[in-house]
Amino acid sequence: MRRLHHWPLDPWSRQARIALGEKQLEFEPVLDRFWDPSDDLLALNPAGLPPVLVDETSGGAIVVVEARAILEYLEEIKPEPALMPGSPADRAEIRRLVGWFDRKFDAEVNAYLLHEKLEKRVQALGAPDMEMIRAGRDHLRWHLDYVCALLEARDGLAGPRWTLADLAAAAHLSCIDYLGDVAWEQYPPAKAWYERIKCRPSFRPLLEDRLPGMAPVTWYADLDF
Amino acid sequence: MRRLHHWPLDPWSRQARIALGEKQLEFEPVLDRFWDPSDDLLALNPAGLPPVLVDETSGGAIVVVEARAILEYLEEIKPEPALMPGSPADRAEIRRLVGWFDRKFDAEVNAYLLHEKLEKRVQALGAPDMEMIRAGRDHLRWHLDYVCALLEARDGLAGPRWTLADLAAAAHLSCIDYLGDVAWEQYPPAKAWYERIKCRPSFRPLLEDRLPGMAPVTWYADLDF
Repeated sequence: MRRLHHWPLDPWSRQARIALGEKQLEFEPVLDRFWDPSDDLLALNPAGLPPVLVDETSGGAIVVVEARAILEYLEEIKPEPALMPGSPADRAEIRRLVGWFDRKFDAEVNAYLLHEKLEKRVQALGAPDMEMIRAGRDHLRWHLDYVCALLEARDGLAGPRWTLADLAAAAHLSCIDYLGDVAWEQYPPAKAWYERIKCRPSFRPLLEDRLPGMAPVTWYADLDF
Repeated sequence: MRRLHHWPLDPWSRQARIALGEKQLEFEPVLDRFWDPSDDLLALNPAGLPPVLVDETSGGAIVVVEARAILEYLEEIKPEPALMPGSPADRAEIRRLVGWFDRKFDAEVNAYLLHEKLEKRVQALGAPDMEMIRAGRDHLRWHLDYVCALLEARDGLAGPRWTLADLAAAAHLSCIDYLGDVAWEQYPPAKAWYERIKCRPSFRPLLEDRLPGMAPVTWYADLDF
């Protein structure tokens, strides 16, 4: 049995869910709040954060903490379908892009939009700051321009094949899309890319996520948006 | 030829330098400021941050951006000596700890101590905020307790062998140590562990780093401190 502690709109939990789906590895999802971790989660990860994968399929329990560790672990235990295909140079570029979204997009977009609109709400931290939201939207425009430039040069973020780079980018962007902040029409290459991703079976469960009292934007789950 | 764009007191640049040293791969260091990247660095990494490794030893130039990508790349092209030895479960624990220092230690310690005492100074951002420094020192105490607990349970951060977990932790802690904020005497297991690390040939060049106008604490380079 495999168990994944996750929170539905946490971009890192989403990376783990998509990767498990791509590898066609079944798992039992366990909901855990990053701002109020259960004792179970704290015992598995002293940082108290999802995602944590507990893999009991080979005898003892293997505990894998943090999205990056989970992604590399899944690639090791089930190499096919490869999420980091190609040469060491290809994998370096894939990992650069994962790092780009996990650090730069997180600091420049999530820290503004996800924090103000989502995290403050679920944690009852007060009203969103409109200045911060405006700044986050500015940063998002720049990031979408960068995504389009990559897609036009490569037909895929790190090349023609679907990789962890696409997966990580989609996990982050899908959380922002839930909030309705992605003006897809203005970014045709990104829109076409995200349309293809929305059709992947690994991605479908994410489109069914609903936060109580906080509906997604109307087009969030539409495959043709 | 290999070239590493780095900044001496950037914890991620230090990870790359130690890893290259451990793998006994020669490289030419190129100094680059994270707050004022050269055109060369920007052309290699649009995020403008060191470390970036340019590996021209096998014909074309392979550009590897970001510490995590560099560490995994080096492990792929030169597996021995292994920095992630063991099973997939062992590597998951090593990667969890690298993530711990890169995200949690960074947010809770570097963002306070390195930012207030070092980054503000080199970037001329004004005087350090003593409240922030006090908070950073509180967080650091908690992190050193955690390091000691791991070392007492395992004789090495992720187990008895030297791994990327030790390397990442030492890279972060060594920057804080330059500033004189680590009260090693109060943490005997961490002190013994760091003494052994200071003796590694891969670590010696870091002990020779000196920022102009900002000398390290007296014991910074002492092997017996």
